Amino acid sequence: MTGTTENSIGRTVPTEVRGRSVSPYAGVFATGPAGNKATPPLGSHRPSDDKVVDSIAEAIKRVDLADNMTVSFHHHLRNGDWVMNMVMEEIEKAGLKGMRLLPSAIFPCHEPMIAMAEKGVIDLIDGSLNGPLGRAASSGLFPEPTFIRSHGGRTRAVESGEAHIDVAFLAASECDPLGNANGVNGPSAFGPMGFAWIDAQYADRVVVVTDNLVPYPVTHMSIPSTHVDVVAVVPQIGDPEGIMSGTTRMTRSPSRLLIARYAVAALADSGYLKDGFSFQAGAGGISLAAVGYLHQYMKAKGIVGSFAMGGITGVVVDMLREGTLEAILDAQAFDLAAVRSVSEDPAHVEVSHYMFGNPHNKGCVTHQQDACFLGATEVDLDFNVNVNTHSDGLLLHGIGGHSDAAAGSRVSLIVIPLLRGRIPVIVDDVVTVSTPGDSVDIVATERGIAINPVRDDLVDALKGSDLPILDIGDLRKMAIEMGGGIDEPELTDEPIAYVEYRDGTMLDTIYRVK
Amino acid sequence: MTGTTENSIGRTVPTEVRGRSVSPYAGVFATGPAGNKATPPLGSHRPSDDKVVDSIAEAIKRVDLADNMTVSFHHHLRNGDWVMNMVMEEIEKAGLKGMRLLPSAIFPCHEPMIAMAEKGVIDLIDGSLNGPLGRAASSGLFPEPTFIRSHGGRTRAVESGEAHIDVAFLAASECDPLGNANGVNGPSAFGPMGFAWIDAQYADRVVVVTDNLVPYPVTHMSIPSTHVDVVAVVPQIGDPEGIMSGTTRMTRSPSRLLIARYAVAALADSGYLKDGFSFQAGAGGISLAAVGYLHQYMKAKGIVGSFAMGGITGVVVDMLREGTLEAILDAQAFDLAAVRSVSEDPAHVEVSHYMFGNPHNKGCVTHQQDACFLGATEVDLDFNVNVNTHSDGLLLHGIGGHSDAAAGSRVSLIVIPLLRGRIPVIVDDVVTVSTPGDSVDIVATERGIAINPVRDDLVDALKGSDLPILDIGDLRKMAIEMGGGIDEPELTDEPIAYVEYRDGTMLDTIYRVK
Repeated sequence: MTGTTENSIGRTVPTEVRGRSVSPYAGVFATGPAGNKATPPLGSHRPSDDKVVDSIAEAIKRVDLADNMTVSFHHHLRNGDWVMNMVMEEIEKAGLKGMRLLPSAIFPCHEPMIAMAEKGVIDLIDGSLNGPLGRAASSGLFPEPTFIRSHGGRTRAVESGEAHIDVAFLAASECDPLGNANGVNGPSAFGPMGFAWIDAQYADRVVVVTDNLVPYPVTHMSIPSTHVDVVAVVPQIGDPEGIMSGTTRMTRSPSRLLIARYAVAALADSGYLKDGFSFQAGAGGISLAAVGYLHQYMKAKGIVGSFAMGGITGVVVDMLREGTLEAILDAQAFDLAAVRSVSEDPAHVEVSHYMFGNPHNKGCVTHQQDACFLGATEVDLDFNVNVNTHSDGLLLHGIGGHSDAAAGSRVSLIVIPLLRGRIPVIVDDVVTVSTPGDSVDIVATERGIAINPVRDDLVDALKGSDLPILDIGDLRKMAIEMGGGIDEPELTDEPIAYVEYRDGTMLDTIYRVK
Repeated sequence: MTGTTENSIGRTVPTEVRGRSVSPYAGVFATGPAGNKATPPLGSHRPSDDKVVDSIAEAIKRVDLADNMTVSFHHHLRNGDWVMNMVMEEIEKAGLKGMRLLPSAIFPCHEPMIAMAEKGVIDLIDGSLNGPLGRAASSGLFPEPTFIRSHGGRTRAVESGEAHIDVAFLAASECDPLGNANGVNGPSAFGPMGFAWIDAQYADRVVVVTDNLVPYPVTHMSIPSTHVDVVAVVPQIGDPEGIMSGTTRMTRSPSRLLIARYAVAALADSGYLKDGFSFQAGAGGISLAAVGYLHQYMKAKGIVGSFAMGGITGVVVDMLREGTLEAILDAQAFDLAAVRSVSEDPAHVEVSHYMFGNPHNKGCVTHQQDACFLGATEVDLDFNVNVNTHSDGLLLHGIGGHSDAAAGSRVSLIVIPLLRGRIPVIVDDVVTVSTPGDSVDIVATERGIAINPVRDDLVDALKGSDLPILDIGDLRKMAIEMGGGIDEPELTDEPIAYVEYRDGTMLDTIYRVK
């Protein structure tokens, strides 16, 4: 990198990436937008034009895909997605090299990308590196550092033009011949297409990949025909059962259920749990449990909440159907009950991740939330949260909507065990800052709750609470006493990724492991 | 004007307007887009920011409105709209001068704009000039010629950046404090906000004007919070009863009902009236009657149509509810039955006029339509249609979606009486070409039907028909015989408006009357 500087939370970050000047992180809302929106080419379509092709190979020809272009994908099918692999196989067959990928996330099913990177078909993957690909990136798979972005931050990067998409390949479970498409209907239904919306808006070319071509007009227009160049019909886009993979199962561990109970109790004691309450539902096992307790509590007290934003599961759908919630704003489904509900419940509304969490549009949902329940691989004494790397420094997870939710919510709660195995989760300094401590309010563990001292309103509100409220340092000591002490990651000084904060500033650097 | 040229239909048009080169019309799909989309400024919004103001005066301050800026309005409340007048009154009170207006249309209720133009508060009104304002424009109200655009063409002009909006003032019958807004709910509900969508996308600043502020989140997001700067609360945005004004009443005249019957019979005989049939429903009295006959015919034959696009009335809603249609794509409501149906019928879907008819996006609805029923003030021997001026040359109507529908539909039908009063409607040459004859297929009158000879497929299909099929010249002769001969408009050679075709080319020039 050309040069580095230290940002407002003391992390060393670059001043220039790929020839473009970048600014250091300066505070949660310190950096506003500059300039104008990206300006994709105008399109056109005559009545007789036919967008439909019967293979991805043909679609690639139609959009004039070339070496070194950036292609994008969404991950709504999660570990059941087949589209990224199918498209990249055809790209390889076509002999293209040096492709740059801008997926909204990666799953273990995308492991074939490693071999493609080794062969030079893929040059870089920006956005979210995790699982096998993250591990490979940590060992230096890519020739230069990639960007790690939050869901909201990715939409900001695309709209600002910093992340330019040449061709977006967007899986859809229902599509008409003109390209009106959704993920809500059809045999491979996966729910909202919140990630895909921004790609359709700003990519130079848009290919909808579908296994369910139906007559015009599809009326649930998650992706509008006005923005689609090609409709590629394939036998199957993926396996919707794969949506339930990874982080989307409720915990059964008694100690983790206790964490969820503490989090909801802290919210109740803080006075936020009243009519009109809104929250972001996460997908982690403890977050899901917290939503379950929230439902129980609100129902028992007769509280009617305003909305839940998510990442939605059947647990949240139950809240809507049982009257504990007035609306669901949904950008991605985390289980098949949520998928079905989008078309069954009129108050379950699809929104984009642009609307969810982009700080540089005129009003996103996370900024309206009362609370969010979030996970972490590590939290440090400054309340900085790591969700990207493990204590060994390996890049194994994406940010998801973590920093978007933390920045926007009136109360952001991190729900974590003190230890995982023998490794402390509360540490002196996180390996990687994914979400800055300035935006984190409460850390709930099975042994106690710590409130960020900058939130003196919350400290005051919880003064009479029966909950075990402790200093974050006390939680740290307990973690050391219970666990096996401190693991120091063995890292080189070679950056493999930059954590870009949702506002486009540089939050942290992730280094290659030894 | 700097220079003029003759376009492909022999009309004299400018080569430059307001310092920008413009191209002559060259054929219905001859001119594609050039370049990239307009690039409005990025925005931002923090959780604590408050968008709500309690007056239009305050909204004007918030958006830094200044002299010579362009402000836009939509006309969904039609002759019941109060917002344009309220905003312009406050602009006048604020002492601003030289404002340029880009309304989607004008109604008689907007007559106060004439005085404002005389006083210099208003410099120009681009888009749709009609009624009292059109009459005044015809006499030279504005210092230079204005642009007359179709609904689809207006969205093209905005997206291409040719028509830049500084501040859009968008009436909404329901809005939350963050700006999520619609016209579907609330005491002043007026239906879809199809015109407003493009303004919200590309205006530098967006003000939602509402009389119905409700808690966040409004889930019917015709206008998304992500694009709204200010929410101005007023006592009342207008009178929804005014929607039914003007052209939206079904004819009761026997001869005009006959025209409607002939049009539907021609469609039936041409073979288009079968399962999957789609059409654009217009608002004119004869068009409405044609939709009624269409319904009767389809129901009797057990035909299930695909979709209707419109400008929707209760007549079309009945088709949906009785199973003659599978879907309604609706950009504006023409009566209150249509307004209610948007929220009551899941298959009645709101779309924008950008999706309706912009030829320079990647797929608009009109290009998918089988048929449309359209009116005219004049039709000439080349099938050119005038909907803007009367035979005396006065500019009294906007284009609406006329040229968008004619260009896109497989069969475009003009439904007109041979005479209005003693004035022939079929003429040798129209005063103004609003829709080029290249895109007009059938002219239906009470005395017979003429098929555009370029459509030899239709000529063939209708060969065995019992309908009175005549040459357009024969209809012209009948009109002269029945009527009072030829009225020549008394015009100067001073342009007061240019008819911009939907693709941005110059279709015709409208001159000042003597």
